[in-house]
Order: sequence, then C-alpha cells, then structure tokens
Amino acid sequence: MSEENSSVQMDKETFDSEVRNQMRLRQLHTIIEKQDSKGLSELYDSMEPIDFALLLENLDDEELSQLTPIMDDDELAGTMEEAEDKERIRIAHALDNHRLLTAFEYMQKDDIVDMLSDFPIGRRKDVINLMKADDRKIITNLLRYPEESAGGIMTTAYIALRGDYTAEYGLEKIRAIGPKTEDIETIYVIDNTGSLVGYVDLRQILASPKSTRLSDLMDDRVISVLPETDQEDVARLVSKYDLNSIPVVSPNKHILGVVTVDDVLDVIVDEYNEDILEMAGVSKEESLDTSLGESVRLRLPWLMVNLATAFLASFTVKLFESTIEQVVALSAIMTIISGMGGNAGTQTLSILVRQLAQKDLTFRECWKPFCKELLLGLIDGASTGLVTGVIVSLMYGNAWLGVIAFIAMIGNMLVSSVFGFLVPLILEKCHADPAVSSSIFVTTATDVLGFFIFLGLAKLFLPLLM
Amino acid sequence: MSEENSSVQMDKETFDSEVRNQMRLRQLHTIIEKQDSKGLSELYDSMEPIDFALLLENLDDEELSQLTPIMDDDELAGTMEEAEDKERIRIAHALDNHRLLTAFEYMQKDDIVDMLSDFPIGRRKDVINLMKADDRKIITNLLRYPEESAGGIMTTAYIALRGDYTAEYGLEKIRAIGPKTEDIETIYVIDNTGSLVGYVDLRQILASPKSTRLSDLMDDRVISVLPETDQEDVARLVSKYDLNSIPVVSPNKHILGVVTVDDVLDVIVDEYNEDILEMAGVSKEESLDTSLGESVRLRLPWLMVNLATAFLASFTVKLFESTIEQVVALSAIMTIISGMGGNAGTQTLSILVRQLAQKDLTFRECWKPFCKELLLGLIDGASTGLVTGVIVSLMYGNAWLGVIAFIAMIGNMLVSSVFGFLVPLILEKCHADPAVSSSIFVTTATDVLGFFIFLGLAKLFLPLLM
Repeated sequence: MSEENSSVQMDKETFDSEVRNQMRLRQLHTIIEKQDSKGLSELYDSMEPIDFALLLENLDDEELSQLTPIMDDDELAGTMEEAEDKERIRIAHALDNHRLLTAFEYMQKDDIVDMLSDFPIGRRKDVINLMKADDRKIITNLLRYPEESAGGIMTTAYIALRGDYTAEYGLEKIRAIGPKTEDIETIYVIDNTGSLVGYVDLRQILASPKSTRLSDLMDDRVISVLPETDQEDVARLVSKYDLNSIPVVSPNKHILGVVTVDDVLDVIVDEYNEDILEMAGVSKEESLDTSLGESVRLRLPWLMVNLATAFLASFTVKLFESTIEQVVALSAIMTIISGMGGNAGTQTLSILVRQLAQKDLTFRECWKPFCKELLLGLIDGASTGLVTGVIVSLMYGNAWLGVIAFIAMIGNMLVSSVFGFLVPLILEKCHADPAVSSSIFVTTATDVLGFFIFLGLAKLFLPLLM
Repeated sequence: MSEENSSVQMDKETFDSEVRNQMRLRQLHTIIEKQDSKGLSELYDSMEPIDFALLLENLDDEELSQLTPIMDDDELAGTMEEAEDKERIRIAHALDNHRLLTAFEYMQKDDIVDMLSDFPIGRRKDVINLMKADDRKIITNLLRYPEESAGGIMTTAYIALRGDYTAEYGLEKIRAIGPKTEDIETIYVIDNTGSLVGYVDLRQILASPKSTRLSDLMDDRVISVLPETDQEDVARLVSKYDLNSIPVVSPNKHILGVVTVDDVLDVIVDEYNEDILEMAGVSKEESLDTSLGESVRLRLPWLMVNLATAFLASFTVKLFESTIEQVVALSAIMTIISGMGGNAGTQTLSILVRQLAQKDLTFRECWKPFCKELLLGLIDGASTGLVTGVIVSLMYGNAWLGVIAFIAMIGNMLVSSVFGFLVPLILEKCHADPAVSSSIFVTTATDVLGFFIFLGLAKLFLPLLM
C-alpha cells in the first residue's frame, strides 16, 4: 500500500471514529434523560472502558451527577481507573463517600491512591477513615511515597510464592491469586523469612514436572528498586531489561509492591510530553483545550523571563551605539552572529539533555566529549563564518567587515559549545531538570556574548570598517 | 530519605557500577587471551544479556573475532538479540554465515529480520538462501514490510488457538508453545477458517472448568492493526488500551504476527529521542560518543539552512539601514521584538507538535483553538509590549519609541500565533514530521516579520522619533 493510500485510510478512520463518537454521545444523553440503566450497560459493554471514560469528558457536571446513580459499581470502577486525573476527580465529586468506597472495592490499590492524592485533604481523610482497617493500612502506607517515585506508582497486587512450593502447588496458588494481579507472567520467589530471592517465569512452571520446587526453577538475578527510586529510573530499568514488572523492595528485601510495564509506559509518555513542552517554556498541564485565561497564566511568566534576558542582550547592543552609528551595516550583521550561536547551542544542549535523560554523567566522563564539542564549535564556526564573511564582504564592499564576521562567528560558536555543554550538566548536578531551563541560559549567553564579541571587534577595528 | 541522601546514593551506585564494569572488562580481556570458554560462560551467566552486550562495545573488531568462537550458540544469540543495531552488525561481521545461521536458531524472527535489514544486500541474500525453506519464507515475508510499520516490528511467535478447544486442551497447547512466545498472557482465538475472532486472558483459562470452550471465555472486542500501520500508531493503541500485545492482521483477519509491549516501549523511547533531538536540528543517530567528523556531517547542514534564514532576516534589517542610521536606538530594540516572537512561536508550536503526536487533528477541529491562540498572542503581546514600551520610553527619553515597540510586539506575537499554529498542522497534512522542521519556519517568520513590522513602523513615524 502506498503512503498516499494509507494516509487516506487513516483520515477516513479518523472521520469514522468522530461520527461514531457523536452517535455514542447522543445515545448517552438519551440514556441520562430516560435514566435507562440497561441501555447504559449495553453502551458500556460495547466500548473499551477508556473510550467510555473519554466519552464522559463531554458531559457537564449536572449530567455526570445524573449518570453515576444508574451505573453499576464495576462500570463506575472501570471508568474511574481509566479516566484522566481531572476527569476522575470530577466523577468522584458526583459521588458520596459511601458509593465511592463501594467502587474502590473493584479498583487496584495504586489507582485508588492516585485518586486520593488528588483529593482535597478533608475528603481524603474522610474516605480513608471509612475504609476497612486492612485497606486503610495499605492505602495510608502507599500515600506516604512521593507521587513520582517507585512507591508512588507501584501496585500491591502481585504474586510472590515461597521457593519450597512445588510447581503444582504454585500453579494452584496462581490460579487463585492470578485474577487479581496485573502481571501473571513473572512470579516472584521469596524465602521463609519473606525476602525476595528470585523470580520464575510462568512458562517454566507450566512446562515443569509437578513436583519441581520453585527454588530449582527460579532465576536469582532479580532486578529490584527501592520505593524512593525516581519513576524515571524505574522506567529506564524496565525498558532496558524488557521486564513485565519490577519489584519494589524494602532495604531488607521484603516486597512492598511491583511496578508493571503499563505504568512504565504512562511514565515514559508523561515525561516525554513534559520534556518536549517544558523545553519550549510550556507547562505539561497545557493542551489545545486549555482555557484562554489558564494559557495566559501558564505561558506569560516564561515570556517575561525571556523579556528580561532580551533586555540584557539589548543593553549589550546599546553599549556599542556610537559604533553602530558610524557603521550602520553592523546592525544587520550582528543578528546573524547571535542567531547562529543560539542554533548551535541548542543542538549541543539537546544532545546533553537526551544523554542525561538516559543516564547520569560524571564530570570525569565528560572531558573527552567536551573537547570534541569545542572542536566542533571551531569547525562549524569556521564553516558558517566563512560563508558569512564572504557574503558580507561582497555585499558591503568591505573585506574587513567580512573578516570580523568570520572571527565573531567562530567566537560565538565556541561560546555555544561551552554553554550548551556545561549548562545542562550543571543544572543536573544542582538537581534541576535540564530539559526545562537549559535553553534560556544558553541562548542568553549566545545572544549577549555574540553581540559583545562582534560589536566589540568592530569597535576595536573601527577605522578599517569606515 | 531526603533528596540529598537519595542522590548521594545514586552517585555511589553510578560509581560502583563503573568500577564493576571496569573489572568485568579486565576479566573479559583475560578470557579472550586464554581462550577460556568456561570462564566466559561464568561471566555471561553472572550478568543480564543486555549488560553483556553493552560490555562488548568496549572490544575492538580484532578482540571480537577472537571472542565469538569461544561463545556458545545461545550466548551468542542472546547477546545479538540485546545489542544495539551497530554492535549487532559488528558481531555478525565477526561470524561466518554458517555460525550466524546456527545462532539464528535461538533468536526471535523479528530480531533476525531487524539484523538482516541492516546487512549489506549481498550478505543478506547469501544468508537467506542458506536458510531452511520454511524459515526463508517467513523471513522474506517479514522483510517486505517497512522497518517502522507494524509488520516491520511484529514477531511471529504468538499463541492463537481455535475457539472450539476446551480450556484443558488449550492449556496443554499453551504449555507446549508458551516457551517460544513473548507474550503468554494474551491468547488469541481464531475460528475454523483461521480468522481472528477474539482473545482470552490466560488467567481465565487457568481459573475455568476444564471443559469450558475458549469461545465461551473470549472477549470478542479485540483491537488489531494492519501490517502497514505506522509504528507510532501501534504504540499509541497499546499504551491507550494497556495491552500486553496487539495482533497484526491481514485484511481478511488472519493473524500475521503480534507486536509486544516491550517493542512498543522501544518505539516510544526512539520516537522521544528523535523528537527531542530533531526539534533542535540534531540527528537521532548522534550521541556524546559520535566522532567529530560524523558530528560535523550531521550538524553542519542544519546550521547552513539556518544561516540562509538568518541572512533573510538580515536583508530585512538592511532594507531599513537609512532609518537605523537616523535613530540608532532602533538597532538595540529590534532584537527584543524578534526574539520574543520566536519564544512565543516556539511555545505554540510545541503544544501543536505534542497534540499531533497523540492524534490527528482535522482543520475543522482547529478553528476554536486557533482563535484562542490569536487572542493569547494579543494578550501576551500587549503585556510584554507594555513592559517593553515603558522601559524603552524611559531609557531613550522618547515616548513614541515606546509606543512603536508596544505595537510591534503585539504584531509579532500575532505572527507567532499564526505561524506557530499553522506550520506544524500544514507540515503534518503534507506528511512531513512537524517535530523536525516546524521551528525553522516559525522562527524565520518571527524574525523577518518582527524586524519588518518594527522597523517599518519606525520608518513611517520617523519624524516623531528624532
């Protein structure tokens, strides 16, 4: 199938799914009007829970509060598990505490914790106090971990069996516990003190003679994390080792929970969106649907910070006003020098940001790449500088103007190498996110120093330029 | 544990793993020297295959060709499955075709295809011709699909059972096929013509009475893709519906293969790196270790393109040389206007790029957000323009200069809204990647038009400024 065809089909699919969504929404409105709980179950069963959750985003609060009473508890739980954070809270808002607790019975503990941590403190406390004692204990424990740590995203529904179990007995246990867990492929093996000692793949248990001990089947090279481990590090491990789940353990190797690969997917997609947006000074909370006022609130501060740095660059130019007054061509050329430094700096910093997202770098490891980056600045600066110099010389009929542009370009490219390399590294060491704030420091440097080098040289050799 | 402590621990871990790697590398060198195949097996078993593959990156070609003869076939296969593309080819280069085929016996078909597609055509043909007839058929079929499509990343090792099988018979089949498949949790159900009709979760098979038919257990809402589907769309579906694997089917619903969640993780990480880097004009192939010459080759073309656009902006300034000559302050202020437009435009385009990465947008859907973006440009332009205008008026003692800066700022922010919104959208419709090329169009627009609006206004009202 050609590129052309495949895209046409895609567009048709997009169109079809829009039409279907419109139909479903009309159906849902009728259901709410007639309080038709049978029709609702039919609609719910005909869709994936996530699509149903997305459909509810089109309802207003009033409609939502008329819908929840005719939903079954498991439908309600399924919808809340799949809904986005904001939508979840809106649904929870339409429920009293009693109904909410009933729905919680059908939900995974990590999803409940996720929801509760977005609740206003008062309601969170009320709900937790109404829980059964053992649930309350698990939930309060989970709530203690930071939201973006292994403990914050782990689930407590996993399978851990003792190593002295036989394959047959183990399988019996798996049959019983399995339906409540998210990952059935990886079975963790613990010793009689409850410490994690290895894992077995369900395939091996299925394929082994009934009397084999799990401890004879298990692989003892099990990769685990502490509950405090940052979710990005967890994601890196799961993706590097192609795991279905990774156990979260206490310092004495007791399993506290597991993080499953689908949660890791969410983490990676979130971090991706965060980095793409925050590199450009946009909050990860913003999307096309964000209200005007909210967008202003989220974007204007970043623009104001940029304005301050723009003035810094502008002051640098102002310092050389008398020089520009005498050779006005400088004003047209200086923007080339500063702009090119910004572009080269952004290239260098992107490489660093990507590298730092994958693993920590020590200053020692950086020595060689840093020298390479400097050389690269020299070569790229000389190449673009040469082109610039020649064009400028011809355009303004003054060879010295070209020479100065050439030297300034090399100088500013070296600036871009130094700042593009060091700024992300230093931010990372200071525990700041290099993706978010690097670019402003780097482009400020290339603007200010780019103007300074070029105009400074021009001032120094002014007689040659006139 | 405080932030401080956790980071110290991390740094210590990084340090430990570096030391461990150095030790292992020394061990490996001794093993090669002594041709100690027992020692090699011990080393291999003490590590994860991916870590062993990473370790081999430190060997030169000579050492590698001395190592492979003492490796077991399954060690060799495990290493090649985990190694990066480049390293894989280097290992394959150290093997003759016969040894390579023996190692292939232990590898998943999708990994073999991945490797073969990176081979020089001649060797690829030779290797394929040496394969057994049925392997050759599967491999040549898989090789036909584009590398970044569902067909290109799918594996042919999956479990599909007929709906009229009982749970007991199904489980027997799973025991037999399971060890060769990547996903054992999702069992696909086919009818007697071989068409996909649903799926069953292994948990349900384990928990059901032995005589239950799979067709009674299955869910018939199965999400599938065509082999031509882009890998990004596959990743989106797997992540949205939290799937362990997604079947790739022919138009008549025969299963051709499945894409598993670990392959999807790789796709997402790759696309992430690609977007982050290519937005900044860096190739996804570049990393800190890339050689100097290679880096120049990869980065210089982008800088040259940028240089062309920088000259475009410079020509615009040159048009107004006589105006600048009379009011030299303009040269310091104009960089503020153009720079701020660039920043605001980058914000808008990032939102669009992110949105387009998640789903296609029709022009019709964009009408409202586009108007919002224009209003936002007006508000942000008025706010930053006011600050700029006041400071400029005070600094240069001319209120009119401030008024012109204020109006020009609003104008250029509107430019940034229009281009930041439309450029990614149009590129997407033209089947270009908006992440890669948007920024250059947008910043060219904000530079050229920013200078033009500001200097044009200044020229128009020149008498007021002097």
